[in-house]
Amino acid sequence: MRSAAVQTMKETEKNPTPQIRRFNRFAEKYSPRIDLSIEKYFTGKKKDAEHAFMAEIRGDLAEYCLRPGKRVRPLVLIAAYLGYGGGPSRLKEVVAIASSLEIMHSFLLIQDDIIDRSSVRRGGEAFHLLMRRRFTGITRNQGIGSDVALVAADVLFCDALQLVLGAKMERTAKESFLRLFARTYERTAWGQILDIINTMPLALRSGDTAAREIGMMKTAYYTVYYPLLMGCALAGADGARERRAIGRFALPLGHAFQVRDDILGVFGDRVEMGKSADSDLLEGKKTVLVQNTVERLDAAGRKRFEALFTKKTKTKTDLRRMRTMMRKSGALDASGDLHRRLIDEAVRAAPALAMNGEGRDVLLGLCAAIGALN
Amino acid sequence: MRSAAVQTMKETEKNPTPQIRRFNRFAEKYSPRIDLSIEKYFTGKKKDAEHAFMAEIRGDLAEYCLRPGKRVRPLVLIAAYLGYGGGPSRLKEVVAIASSLEIMHSFLLIQDDIIDRSSVRRGGEAFHLLMRRRFTGITRNQGIGSDVALVAADVLFCDALQLVLGAKMERTAKESFLRLFARTYERTAWGQILDIINTMPLALRSGDTAAREIGMMKTAYYTVYYPLLMGCALAGADGARERRAIGRFALPLGHAFQVRDDILGVFGDRVEMGKSADSDLLEGKKTVLVQNTVERLDAAGRKRFEALFTKKTKTKTDLRRMRTMMRKSGALDASGDLHRRLIDEAVRAAPALAMNGEGRDVLLGLCAAIGALN
Repeated sequence: MRSAAVQTMKETEKNPTPQIRRFNRFAEKYSPRIDLSIEKYFTGKKKDAEHAFMAEIRGDLAEYCLRPGKRVRPLVLIAAYLGYGGGPSRLKEVVAIASSLEIMHSFLLIQDDIIDRSSVRRGGEAFHLLMRRRFTGITRNQGIGSDVALVAADVLFCDALQLVLGAKMERTAKESFLRLFARTYERTAWGQILDIINTMPLALRSGDTAAREIGMMKTAYYTVYYPLLMGCALAGADGARERRAIGRFALPLGHAFQVRDDILGVFGDRVEMGKSADSDLLEGKKTVLVQNTVERLDAAGRKRFEALFTKKTKTKTDLRRMRTMMRKSGALDASGDLHRRLIDEAVRAAPALAMNGEGRDVLLGLCAAIGALN
Repeated sequence: MRSAAVQTMKETEKNPTPQIRRFNRFAEKYSPRIDLSIEKYFTGKKKDAEHAFMAEIRGDLAEYCLRPGKRVRPLVLIAAYLGYGGGPSRLKEVVAIASSLEIMHSFLLIQDDIIDRSSVRRGGEAFHLLMRRRFTGITRNQGIGSDVALVAADVLFCDALQLVLGAKMERTAKESFLRLFARTYERTAWGQILDIINTMPLALRSGDTAAREIGMMKTAYYTVYYPLLMGCALAGADGARERRAIGRFALPLGHAFQVRDDILGVFGDRVEMGKSADSDLLEGKKTVLVQNTVERLDAAGRKRFEALFTKKTKTKTDLRRMRTMMRKSGALDASGDLHRRLIDEAVRAAPALAMNGEGRDVLLGLCAAIGALN
């Protein structure tokens, strides 16, 4: 049995509201342009490759970066640029700059999969497995896949920088963008570290705020807050007042994005997630859903849940029992409620954004999409 | 018994030539300023840390980045800036920008040690071991040290960018610098990948150019060519003609730096290297020295050498036999000769650099230092 929240999400997906359709139209318009910009950049780089191995890995990186995905971060940046009155004359360059966020997303996904020992990403092989297949049989190094992938990710970081530096844009705007860029990935890295040290914990305790903080640092700032600020800066519209308005809108929305991910990570379909709905539990991710369960169980129940959650190898029965406890304790519904409240908070904060109506509509569409499934 | 080349290196170290002393004086003057700039940056960041784990890792990163080292890359940048007529008014900012290269060096060393599973770096623990010690006992994740270290390295990349962006410097100069910066670490990453796919090879073959190419991509461009170009760009002096002159000087010098490292990596002292002189052979690094040995042995000898080199676990006797073959085949002397020829080539190219006498003297001192030990 699904929770009411997940059920609502699924129905909304089949029957998108006008707001979601508004966001989808925006995505359909700009996603291909983002991909084209990435493709163009990689084609140039592949042509310049001095060695065969570079051209080969370049091809793999292009395939990886261009796998189907929502392109949320570049889309948010573009929506903010247009919403804050950025002119159409520089839009092509803004799309190029925005596509650097997608390249950085791939950079982070490659590292994520090395860390989580994951094998599947966006419907294809994890990058370290691609590299293992490409270079296996030439060395005795069993870890060659992860080793090469780790450094190939660095190539992407440099690519993102080069894409930005190559854009035809005023130097002041580019520099503001790069400052935000560096802060974005620093904060995201700290969030990732907090995630790592809270994964596969030996114990669970009530009152633990780690899950919430991971969601803020690793997702809310990374996915919504900074991309909005970046678009705003590229339009030349950022200031302390607007930053505050963006924070009040973006942080609850980004947090909701993470909570939704946490719920779907345990109660979603494989198809929706692009990965097994067992992996969060198998990997021992301390999510908002897990923490809510801890808070709602009595001492005995918590001990039982903790014993299952901290088991090294979990059986299908263990997973089923944990899911039951999440549901019966009310934690799943509470997480769905939290998700809903955060979306409402973002929607209420939207009017204070000093954006034009069109830009705000796209962002409200994003709220609706994150409020449902996308 | 030591080879003549290593013997000469050791004597020169005890009794530095006036040229080397010239470089050493320059290093003694600027290294503390580089370290101070790093320290200041990290102190600010530590103060801003929002969580205890951030402040702790910040402390570890500062300790790691400030471990004793030669600071070659920032020193080369500063020498070029001054040599190309960069003014004293911006020197403090140039030192700050130069220190970003040292932070990036630590970024690469952390990754290097994860990849090579090394335990010692610059006389201290490898960063992934520091992280393992810090976070062990809180999760079931056996790989937590490498996982956290990998992402902490990303923090350093963002730090380097922020340090550069925070410098008070004309936007044009900063942008030129950042373009070189992104190209530097892209090329270095490709060199690192070439290194990885050539380490622990299952076979050795004559005519293989990988060792030379690794030296160029991973060391020559990274350590000498790009830092020189960066200093030149910050002084506002770069142009196509000067880039060519820098290439003719920097690439042989940088290549010599790698050949010296390859020789000392097998025939040096533990003290000189900061790591065991067995590790290159144990790790199965395909160096210029190894390749020279392959080229000089007859078919039977090559087969014997290959059998030893590709062994999974090498005994002390294996290592001794390989060293003997390197010496007796003449490969060690040939590598010493190559090192010498490359230094001479750089020295001959120095007069064509459009630098003032002082700057050129420092670089000739660097040639002498790399020609010996430093």
